[in-house]
Amino acid sequence: MIYDLVIYNGVVVTASDILPPSIYIGINNGVIETMTTQPLKGKKEIDCEGAYITPGGIDSHVHLDQDNAPTGDDFDSGSKSAIAGGTTTILPFAIQPKKEKNITAVVQDYHKRANKKGGSYCDYGFHLIISEPNEEMLTEEFPEIIAQEGITSVKVYTTYPRYKLTDNQLLNVLLANRKLGVTTMIHAENSDIIDFINEQLQKKNLTDPFYHSISRPLVAEEEASYRVIALAKLIDVPILIVHMSSKTAMDHVRKAQTDNIPIYSETCPQYLFLTADYLKPSCIHHLDPHDHFEGAKYICSPPLRQEQSELDAIWDNINNGTVTVFSSDHAPTTYDDPEGKKAGIINGIPHYKSIPNGLPGIETRIPLLFCFGVETQRISPQKFVELTSTNAAKLYGLTNKGTIGVGFDGDITIWYPKNRINFKLTNAMLNHSIDYTPYEGMQFTNWPRYTILRGEVVYDRDNSGVIGSKSGQYLKRHASSLRGPLHDINSIFK
Amino acid sequence: MIYDLVIYNGVVVTASDILPPSIYIGINNGVIETMTTQPLKGKKEIDCEGAYITPGGIDSHVHLDQDNAPTGDDFDSGSKSAIAGGTTTILPFAIQPKKEKNITAVVQDYHKRANKKGGSYCDYGFHLIISEPNEEMLTEEFPEIIAQEGITSVKVYTTYPRYKLTDNQLLNVLLANRKLGVTTMIHAENSDIIDFINEQLQKKNLTDPFYHSISRPLVAEEEASYRVIALAKLIDVPILIVHMSSKTAMDHVRKAQTDNIPIYSETCPQYLFLTADYLKPSCIHHLDPHDHFEGAKYICSPPLRQEQSELDAIWDNINNGTVTVFSSDHAPTTYDDPEGKKAGIINGIPHYKSIPNGLPGIETRIPLLFCFGVETQRISPQKFVELTSTNAAKLYGLTNKGTIGVGFDGDITIWYPKNRINFKLTNAMLNHSIDYTPYEGMQFTNWPRYTILRGEVVYDRDNSGVIGSKSGQYLKRHASSLRGPLHDINSIFK
Amino acid sequence: MIYDLVIYNGVVVTASDILPPSIYIGINNGVIETMTTQPLKGKKEIDCEGAYITPGGIDSHVHLDQDNAPTGDDFDSGSKSAIAGGTTTILPFAIQPKKEKNITAVVQDYHKRANKKGGSYCDYGFHLIISEPNEEMLTEEFPEIIAQEGITSVKVYTTYPRYKLTDNQLLNVLLANRKLGVTTMIHAENSDIIDFINEQLQKKNLTDPFYHSISRPLVAEEEASYRVIALAKLIDVPILIVHMSSKTAMDHVRKAQTDNIPIYSETCPQYLFLTADYLKPSCIHHLDPHDHFEGAKYICSPPLRQEQSELDAIWDNINNGTVTVFSSDHAPTTYDDPEGKKAGIINGIPHYKSIPNGLPGIETRIPLLFCFGVETQRISPQKFVELTSTNAAKLYGLTNKGTIGVGFDGDITIWYPKNRINFKLTNAMLNHSIDYTPYEGMQFTNWPRYTILRGEVVYDRDNSGVIGSKSGQYLKRHASSLRGPLHDINSIFK
Amino acid sequence: MIYDLVIYNGVVVTASDILPPSIYIGINNGVIETMTTQPLKGKKEIDCEGAYITPGGIDSHVHLDQDNAPTGDDFDSGSKSAIAGGTTTILPFAIQPKKEKNITAVVQDYHKRANKKGGSYCDYGFHLIISEPNEEMLTEEFPEIIAQEGITSVKVYTTYPRYKLTDNQLLNVLLANRKLGVTTMIHAENSDIIDFINEQLQKKNLTDPFYHSISRPLVAEEEASYRVIALAKLIDVPILIVHMSSKTAMDHVRKAQTDNIPIYSETCPQYLFLTADYLKPSCIHHLDPHDHFEGAKYICSPPLRQEQSELDAIWDNINNGTVTVFSSDHAPTTYDDPEGKKAGIINGIPHYKSIPNGLPGIETRIPLLFCFGVETQRISPQKFVELTSTNAAKLYGLTNKGTIGVGFDGDITIWYPKNRINFKLTNAMLNHSIDYTPYEGMQFTNWPRYTILRGEVVYDRDNSGVIGSKSGQYLKRHASSLRGPLHDINSIFK
Repeated sequence: MIYDLVIYNGVVVTASDILPPSIYIGINNGVIETMTTQPLKGKKEIDCEGAYITPGGIDSHVHLDQDNAPTGDDFDSGSKSAIAGGTTTILPFAIQPKKEKNITAVVQDYHKRANKKGGSYCDYGFHLIISEPNEEMLTEEFPEIIAQEGITSVKVYTTYPRYKLTDNQLLNVLLANRKLGVTTMIHAENSDIIDFINEQLQKKNLTDPFYHSISRPLVAEEEASYRVIALAKLIDVPILIVHMSSKTAMDHVRKAQTDNIPIYSETCPQYLFLTADYLKPSCIHHLDPHDHFEGAKYICSPPLRQEQSELDAIWDNINNGTVTVFSSDHAPTTYDDPEGKKAGIINGIPHYKSIPNGLPGIETRIPLLFCFGVETQRISPQKFVELTSTNAAKLYGLTNKGTIGVGFDGDITIWYPKNRINFKLTNAMLNHSIDYTPYEGMQFTNWPRYTILRGEVVYDRDNSGVIGSKSGQYLKRHASSLRGPLHDINSIFK
Repeated sequence: MIYDLVIYNGVVVTASDILPPSIYIGINNGVIETMTTQPLKGKKEIDCEGAYITPGGIDSHVHLDQDNAPTGDDFDSGSKSAIAGGTTTILPFAIQPKKEKNITAVVQDYHKRANKKGGSYCDYGFHLIISEPNEEMLTEEFPEIIAQEGITSVKVYTTYPRYKLTDNQLLNVLLANRKLGVTTMIHAENSDIIDFINEQLQKKNLTDPFYHSISRPLVAEEEASYRVIALAKLIDVPILIVHMSSKTAMDHVRKAQTDNIPIYSETCPQYLFLTADYLKPSCIHHLDPHDHFEGAKYICSPPLRQEQSELDAIWDNINNGTVTVFSSDHAPTTYDDPEGKKAGIINGIPHYKSIPNGLPGIETRIPLLFCFGVETQRISPQKFVELTSTNAAKLYGLTNKGTIGVGFDGDITIWYPKNRINFKLTNAMLNHSIDYTPYEGMQFTNWPRYTILRGEVVYDRDNSGVIGSKSGQYLKRHASSLRGPLHDINSIFK
Repeated sequence: MIYDLVIYNGVVVTASDILPPSIYIGINNGVIETMTTQPLKGKKEIDCEGAYITPGGIDSHVHLDQDNAPTGDDFDSGSKSAIAGGTTTILPFAIQPKKEKNITAVVQDYHKRANKKGGSYCDYGFHLIISEPNEEMLTEEFPEIIAQEGITSVKVYTTYPRYKLTDNQLLNVLLANRKLGVTTMIHAENSDIIDFINEQLQKKNLTDPFYHSISRPLVAEEEASYRVIALAKLIDVPILIVHMSSKTAMDHVRKAQTDNIPIYSETCPQYLFLTADYLKPSCIHHLDPHDHFEGAKYICSPPLRQEQSELDAIWDNINNGTVTVFSSDHAPTTYDDPEGKKAGIINGIPHYKSIPNGLPGIETRIPLLFCFGVETQRISPQKFVELTSTNAAKLYGLTNKGTIGVGFDGDITIWYPKNRINFKLTNAMLNHSIDYTPYEGMQFTNWPRYTILRGEVVYDRDNSGVIGSKSGQYLKRHASSLRGPLHDINSIFK
Repeated sequence: MIYDLVIYNGVVVTASDILPPSIYIGINNGVIETMTTQPLKGKKEIDCEGAYITPGGIDSHVHLDQDNAPTGDDFDSGSKSAIAGGTTTILPFAIQPKKEKNITAVVQDYHKRANKKGGSYCDYGFHLIISEPNEEMLTEEFPEIIAQEGITSVKVYTTYPRYKLTDNQLLNVLLANRKLGVTTMIHAENSDIIDFINEQLQKKNLTDPFYHSISRPLVAEEEASYRVIALAKLIDVPILIVHMSSKTAMDHVRKAQTDNIPIYSETCPQYLFLTADYLKPSCIHHLDPHDHFEGAKYICSPPLRQEQSELDAIWDNINNGTVTVFSSDHAPTTYDDPEGKKAGIINGIPHYKSIPNGLPGIETRIPLLFCFGVETQRISPQKFVELTSTNAAKLYGLTNKGTIGVGFDGDITIWYPKNRINFKLTNAMLNHSIDYTPYEGMQFTNWPRYTILRGEVVYDRDNSGVIGSKSGQYLKRHASSLRGPLHDINSIFK
């Protein structure tokens, strides 16, 4: 038999196991059909030269083609950037604007956005952001969307006027999701604390980019994390707290997990690698010493944290199992807009509140964790796979994705053999449509050499880079297979 | 020299010390002038027969003559009831109604209420409840009130539509209070959780009194306690969380105290002695087995808790030092109104949401803790004094009150010698204007024998009971002398 | 190609993944050669009928042919019992007696014991129990044994006169093991506490079997667990605390794991299923109501715990990830010896101290966790695999074992399809040489249907049971692949 | 009436209260007879000029005239030094040497030592150090000593060959003490850890004074603290852990106290003010830059800690209530012996193990805490009184000591009014017989101006210093009045 693709001479890693190197993987029709120690023949054959073979990355927190980021990535550039960073599946957000009542229309609109320029380079699904819940929507319209569209996850916010829900609304969403078996993602920062500090800072005209980090202190994340865990506990429903950046907030999650309450946690590269120093005018990492506004590139929420001990704590929680998924929260806008203007500078004065939030990272996410986690032995290869792919597949019901195993989709990232490459990253190397990367100048010791999407080599770093067509498929998802509620639903909530 | 009053042959207890029994206390002009082992002469002399002598009780959480409790106690009956229970100072609330902008008028109105029937039997001051904060009020009007009226404490709520503040409003009040050196009392229950459960219960027509306790679960107190501690920590300002009833909420306070964050805690008799069983129709403690509504008598917020382990935890936190003050939260209304109707029964159907919140307790507070704490050796006599008098004097700036010492006001409670009395409590024995006591039928082994207010015997249990006139004075208070902020004020809050 | 064995139509489970049911597994020469969705041909083919397929169990804590248990199992009966319970690899102990200096001889002696009756039905390796460490042994003899015999794990005790090491000796062993990359297993109970209580009980002639549990209180385990974690932390070396039975001791492990200190934890079926009630004369689970000594069957150390909450806590710690391996601690002796006498009855009076410690469990270990964990959905199938096989393979360096994957040994347990069998366990069903099982009468809903050792069906429950020959191989092991030391070795320990 | 002594115009502080300044204290026959706002007449009258008046200090941890410190202080110089530092009562140790069976003789011997040079300048009692417990001693001889000598406290060690008890011996002592109502003081450091590190250091010839701190790491104190709390919990008996120096060990105490387990804690000035830097040859605080051995002056056990965060944690635990008493652990020997030789230098090479342990501090203890605690507002005046006097009186049954109150002994320390004095400390100012002070060069803003022992002015700093005679009395003590066991004694221990 001749397989569509045969991969051999690499070290396959799953979230649990490392297989011996002498394995042939045969892929047909996009699916891993055979794994064997016997040589296989393929139309195309890849010799991994002893390098690691990991499941295609799943980036489960991505913002593309959003109204509030007109100079950000769309599905075209964003999905291309994903592929070039070893990611084969992305989960961007279909967003219900405030006042919008019809979430079916919202989802249809995002299908249009995904197909605007001919589709996506990688596979994708949608999370649904709910900003205006009501009972009919939650109990009638949403079940239909789950059934038709396979959208089994919802994101909600405790902050941002555009999205923020009250605790009462959160409880209604959580209860509906409990009944529907849907996973809830929550952005947890206390909105009133942030507003209050903003007011104090505005009064004193403290508006430089750095004050963004002052305006969203650790305690805002700590408080909101405790609160949403309390709400989830009341309903007994799984939640994922997104983009966590605080030791104490992680402690809350850890405590809940210790009690087997189904609280899941996400973190992102920026909370492992960047401190609030990057927000300062004088930061040594900036490209242009004369540009005092360059801190604006590093504005995201939660903000970069001031103490290295917070970043270390996130690494610790990656290793001890508290962190469930590692995503990019790719949500950038360009530093200069097409006319060369910078959002956030008004009449020549920087205003951190007017700088769009979010960093680019869809392409650098996996290489960063591989180079500075696996290759430095800070984390095990299995932990890398678990965080970049397997757990996202489980939590978000991507049943054919997330591991390298017979019967699973042939989504595979092949790395370079150890010590083969070593280079300094520049933004020019990246495929996103953003004019900067926060990781400019970092020294990388590896990068995905090949990205394979359902058996097709879509990225060959040494030959033309992204070579795939826009063959990414929309993914209807199933329910989470991670631990769910502890108990039967409380009778008063039935 | 002849003293106005001489007390001898008793065991004086302070929050720290127990003095030897051979002491004479001489009081002149309302003040303790002399303590000596030498016999003193007095116009009136009291032989304590070896009994304990404790500082007059301070009940720092009392609701009198409130608009929302028309059949509750006013200053007349309330202060008389206090005196008969060994309490010589009370701190009721002057309440700013929502929409009311003028807090000076609010305070004046409460002075009128206090003097409506000729004044108070005991000394008193006012806390100010703020329900509608604004900057001018906090920074201009309130400092004036502190200076003129000696009102150095504010109470705010996280729940009840009538009083509830947002987190942003709480932060503004806390910041103002930090600058003014004022103590903030906070009712901490998550309002949205309660509303959400109320909605679920109403849908299912679950409206019996017992559902009151279901509607305000532990997690509502736990969450709000964590949140207000976080807010206080941000501002670095002392707060007291009132009427705490939950182990986990107490753990939050304990954790903060361990870190020397100035978080103080109050509990009340109902959270030591009564479980949610009292709310049930069939409760064996009820007076009338045929009255299925009697649970209504036990509705207070936070509600009585279902598990004895929660009550035990409050006892534990009394002993380990986490609880700062022990107050009554006296806030009753009559079970039957003057026409014999019961609030909360609408068209013959009980509705827990329409039952006024609050239990009577101003008179039973101290005897309960003495009998079931000191006499059973569950707590030390010093801890009793600390919780019923000394700490309230310190926290609320009652500089002449709170201990038995030379130069302090002659406010004294004299107990019976051990094993002298033993009786079953009935409501008829009490001096409040309420038609029930939640402690009906409990067996008491002691009770204040004499209450002395500034050197005047105002209660002689064996001879006519309350014998004082309405000589209670309004108390202008000073700042708290308990631990305050950890640090200088953060420059962005200046 | 014709495989030696083909297995199909089952659901393969690894510690991370569940594969789709349409997979064929082809085994040749004892190794899994191929996994594919394409039909394979085999000399022997097994249709799993949709049942679960799990890696062959690894029982990493087994006592066989020990001098102190003359009526216990030897390698013959013990390994047969393992196979019949789905276990394909066991790790019994080669024990250095006190005073014995030559550990090479100890190991040789255990090889002889293993081969006494013609070998073992299952694969096996040895842990080495060190009871008399000295520097030469640790630094010269032991490295030789690691190299020659592949013994990469050592067990030490904090209790039992026969084995007990001082803290100083423990530190010397831990330091040697750190340098050698060896895993240390520790039995953690405070010996002095136990001796002290024994003395009190002997004085009062309290010697019934139940007093065994009184004599080894939770605090003895809690203290020793804390202590050995402290010692391991000082040396920065991984340890496994064996047979944990206490919530607080688990909390210590959890805390260490939270900080990424490499502390591992083992528990056993008895700490999940049996309370100290079984030790009482009147226990309703006993076979013979007239035999007041039957509690003797349940004597193990740590003892069965009195509170169900302790057992629940162990389940919780299984689910939250604190427990690393689930072993049997199979260490029984017969209730009646060959002459029909019972150890522990002296002159007609029971003496708990004379009853040999240890329960039989090598055969029931896996079925218990499968039936009462996986089938009741208390744990996931992946967690079952992790605890019964994968983690033991990683921790003890069994590099060809512990998962079902291409290139790994063909050690496989095949279960019955759901709802196929349901029976009450009796000791007669078991293959050990012990005259009782602690789980007599429990209702089982599943049991290994086939056990496969390196591609050979060695147990077919529906046809003759154990059908394999004594083809078990001795396993030379490698170093642990679980997380090791946090830091480079402290220079003062070099 | 003319009093022996009248004190007026000062601010009396108790552990709870601060009295108004207008008070006259009249002392007769050594006892506080009268406190009054009325002027009193005295044979001697002291105008405090508005300064603080605190209870005479109680130093409950003092080593005098010990065999192992031949060049240390005896009762003569030690008690004189105490008086000059505001301490009126000391509790040195009567030590049972190993092998000595007769503790009655031990106590008699210490009476002789106390009277060797004509007695003590201050009042004193004895703790008993037990190094060789046996049942007869604990149950027959010791009760006699309690009755005859009023020795109600015992100290035991987990370390030092001279004193060390096994856990079993500790349990026997704790059980005996539980039955006798005696308080147990425990030195908690893991002896084996220390020995083990000593062995490593000796092998590498690392013997400079600094290695003393390496040899007794935090984990040795953390482990032993956890262990002795576990033992105390088993017996349900109060203990005091002496001279605590570790954050984590304090956390263990805090946790126990949270659960109302009667665990008490002591710390000393050296753990608040000195880091391990003082042990280094190059320390900037040393007097002689050419003397590389000066670190030897700072050798105590537990050792000075390396991180300032540990010292800060002790301050935190002082403020949050975890620390019960603040003592000196005065246990010095001279740096140079009478022949000018230094213990610890052998053949010209420093050997930390040969340097006697212990710092001088009996005279500086109270001034340090007053200046750097009260005057800097780091602690409240009441907390100062509680820690330096009141709690020791309660814990060790000194019923006439520990507060300023009518009926109590007239033991009083009078301070200078604020900003009156300010000087740099030199050893020449001190009254001990030691040739150095660890606090040389520290800037003091206050010092006891007068020390009064039972109504007699024994120290007048501005006139001749110590002016008292050796009128100190031996104190027979009572049982502790702090919280005792939680429960009735376990029946198996009766």
